[in-house]
Amino acid sequence: MRVSRYFLPTLKETPADAQIASHIFMLRAGMVRQSASGIYTWLPLGLRVLKKIEDIVREEQNKAGALEVLMPTIQSADLWKKSGRYDDYGKEMLRISDRKDAELLYGPTNEELITDIFSNEVKSYKDLPKNLYHIQWKFRDEIRPRFGVMRGREFLMKDAYSFDVSAEAGRDSYNAMFTAYLRTFARMGLKAMPMRADTGPIGGDLSHEFLVIAETGESEVFFHKGFEDLDPMVETHSAEERQSIVDTWTSMYAATDEIHNPETCDVADSDLIQGRGIEVGHIFFFGDKYSAPMGASVQGPDGKLVNVQMGSYGVGVSRLVGGIIESSHDENGIIWPESVAPFKIGLINLGGKNDDCVAFCDDLYAQLEAAGIEVLYDDTKNGAGAKFSQMDLIGLPWQIAVGPRGLKNGVVEVKNRKTGEKVEMTPQDALTKFS
Amino acid sequence: MRVSRYFLPTLKETPADAQIASHIFMLRAGMVRQSASGIYTWLPLGLRVLKKIEDIVREEQNKAGALEVLMPTIQSADLWKKSGRYDDYGKEMLRISDRKDAELLYGPTNEELITDIFSNEVKSYKDLPKNLYHIQWKFRDEIRPRFGVMRGREFLMKDAYSFDVSAEAGRDSYNAMFTAYLRTFARMGLKAMPMRADTGPIGGDLSHEFLVIAETGESEVFFHKGFEDLDPMVETHSAEERQSIVDTWTSMYAATDEIHNPETCDVADSDLIQGRGIEVGHIFFFGDKYSAPMGASVQGPDGKLVNVQMGSYGVGVSRLVGGIIESSHDENGIIWPESVAPFKIGLINLGGKNDDCVAFCDDLYAQLEAAGIEVLYDDTKNGAGAKFSQMDLIGLPWQIAVGPRGLKNGVVEVKNRKTGEKVEMTPQDALTKFS
Repeated sequence: MRVSRYFLPTLKETPADAQIASHIFMLRAGMVRQSASGIYTWLPLGLRVLKKIEDIVREEQNKAGALEVLMPTIQSADLWKKSGRYDDYGKEMLRISDRKDAELLYGPTNEELITDIFSNEVKSYKDLPKNLYHIQWKFRDEIRPRFGVMRGREFLMKDAYSFDVSAEAGRDSYNAMFTAYLRTFARMGLKAMPMRADTGPIGGDLSHEFLVIAETGESEVFFHKGFEDLDPMVETHSAEERQSIVDTWTSMYAATDEIHNPETCDVADSDLIQGRGIEVGHIFFFGDKYSAPMGASVQGPDGKLVNVQMGSYGVGVSRLVGGIIESSHDENGIIWPESVAPFKIGLINLGGKNDDCVAFCDDLYAQLEAAGIEVLYDDTKNGAGAKFSQMDLIGLPWQIAVGPRGLKNGVVEVKNRKTGEKVEMTPQDALTKFS
Repeated sequence: MRVSRYFLPTLKETPADAQIASHIFMLRAGMVRQSASGIYTWLPLGLRVLKKIEDIVREEQNKAGALEVLMPTIQSADLWKKSGRYDDYGKEMLRISDRKDAELLYGPTNEELITDIFSNEVKSYKDLPKNLYHIQWKFRDEIRPRFGVMRGREFLMKDAYSFDVSAEAGRDSYNAMFTAYLRTFARMGLKAMPMRADTGPIGGDLSHEFLVIAETGESEVFFHKGFEDLDPMVETHSAEERQSIVDTWTSMYAATDEIHNPETCDVADSDLIQGRGIEVGHIFFFGDKYSAPMGASVQGPDGKLVNVQMGSYGVGVSRLVGGIIESSHDENGIIWPESVAPFKIGLINLGGKNDDCVAFCDDLYAQLEAAGIEVLYDDTKNGAGAKFSQMDLIGLPWQIAVGPRGLKNGVVEVKNRKTGEKVEMTPQDALTKFS
């Protein structure tokens, strides 16, 4: 993509209303613009990141055996009255009346609707286990939306719902999502730590939230240093393997400051790490909390009807864009992990109107594109300083700078955004390196 | 995907509330379920088709130079008051109050919001042309939702918005979308015909709608038989080429029955084809209708501010799922064009519990998947008749049936869903054919 043809409205100054790094840099890098309180438009650069995160989430859900569906954003209030949550949910739920005065709402979550769909279609334990997920916009009418996409009102969430014939089978579905989440966040370059959590308005008695460790995190967390040695890129092939991995990850101490008590914590001070965390995922096992009131039962092996055992599993997809920036930036801007970077390479023409330099850059751009590499090519007439600053701000993993002096020597300069290391190499070596 | 693990709730009977082919087959094939009046959940099979259609639309928008953004579903009423449409839109617009009594709405279209985003960021003619599009759920509170996804309330639409410094440049942006639409619909196996149209609530003085010709279409249409000879897979490289193609396609007679008048139509009877059409796209050029009231101006080449010239360009993405079925089905079910089929092949094990047959099918399934072919593998214990009926119903382009008798002779049966033609071949030949 050529910058001259792109829609990349970057800002030099920090917007007055932005306080945290992700909010500041998402506005400055032209990734999003607020259109109403807590409601954002994703501009081209931001949308590319959002979609890469969504794709990683999707791949890991599919790999774990979950099936993708898509529920609507607008739901009927009837199902929520049946489950008893219509009143419980309070003012965070956006309630709507249509032209016929039917009571609707913008879904803040989907336990009721998916349970209804499931129970209409599945009647036998032979069709279980099932895990249905979707990646859809949700709305929660936060009283004080802030921190950009980190605490917005309209946000993109992946929510999965598992259905099993027994609590034991349900536990394995829970473990499958637990292990999928370890992989999901690791693939985005994040250190995400599972912590035992309260179940809140979702209910149930087993729950973990996944927190990304970042200096600017919203919660203070305490965890055993042993987490650093665990490999999150787990592969499992049986319920036993999954249980064993979950046991390993949950055997080590991890708690937010709400739960942590220095008096009773039995981890040695030298083993305890204190940090800050951002919640990016939350999983729940709640048995028959929804299946019982909503009549979601199947015929069991003995011919008798049993209420299905359910869990639900959320990932904050749009929130992750902010979470990744919080955990990976410097004073100059964002530092994207390659897996979610909007482009892999920023190609910078330093030659301005120098015809040779323009022709050379055009050619290198065409070759990189032909090799299937995602390149953002700054072909504008801006000065070198502005071009470098903008590339650092938007944080692509690699920069290739092409100037008239380098060209005479047959070299371009390749910079690693994360380390800052710069290496001169021939264009051919650069092509080989990135292909 | 194995049918035993999939979520594919097909129905043998026609649901009572469904009248047209697409609605009947989408319910029967387990593609969607209604969750409230005119609001649908997309089940796994339906979602696969929806995403393939979305991808074709996206590829052709990108190819035409449009840039993808994502605007939110919920908008502030303020912008609509500025443009004057807040009152005009009437009861089809879903109006919402949040917890602070701010006036919001669920976007039925996005002219106001995109104009606001554009005008905040773009100040000079040098940054034009720009064409920004998104693929997002919309809501229109239809008084009588019907025909399944063909006339639902929550629906997926691609809407693009072009911004140009002059009417002439704006006309080229319009032509670029016109030619992109020809390609888009053709790639889905559709014959879509552009017809001069009224501009309705969008406004402006130039507009075409694209109608798919299908027996069950909502409108009666009359068109010159010469359309049959035009190639919609156009490639253009200049404004002149685009104008020439648009001239060719718009020079031939085409009109809906609202406009067609046999008295004044100058096409010879022998050249006039009468059919029925379904609207799947609509494009508008409306100049400064929104830019003037909303103050969207740029500095022109002479240094003076000019209001930008705009167009908007819609494709009914979810509607197309129904439109394609209307134009491609028989009495047994859907006949998917390969480009949008949820899977390319349905693999049917006719051997039931026959161990050799199961092992053979498992192996062939693994080989097809390894070759990157999308396969739905019916590994259930259902009878042969039920399996064939279900495969015909869901309409995958190809079926491979494997039975114990064929296996003895070293052959499988390959059926073309569209023609019904069946051919016996070795599994190796089948693999080669589809790889």
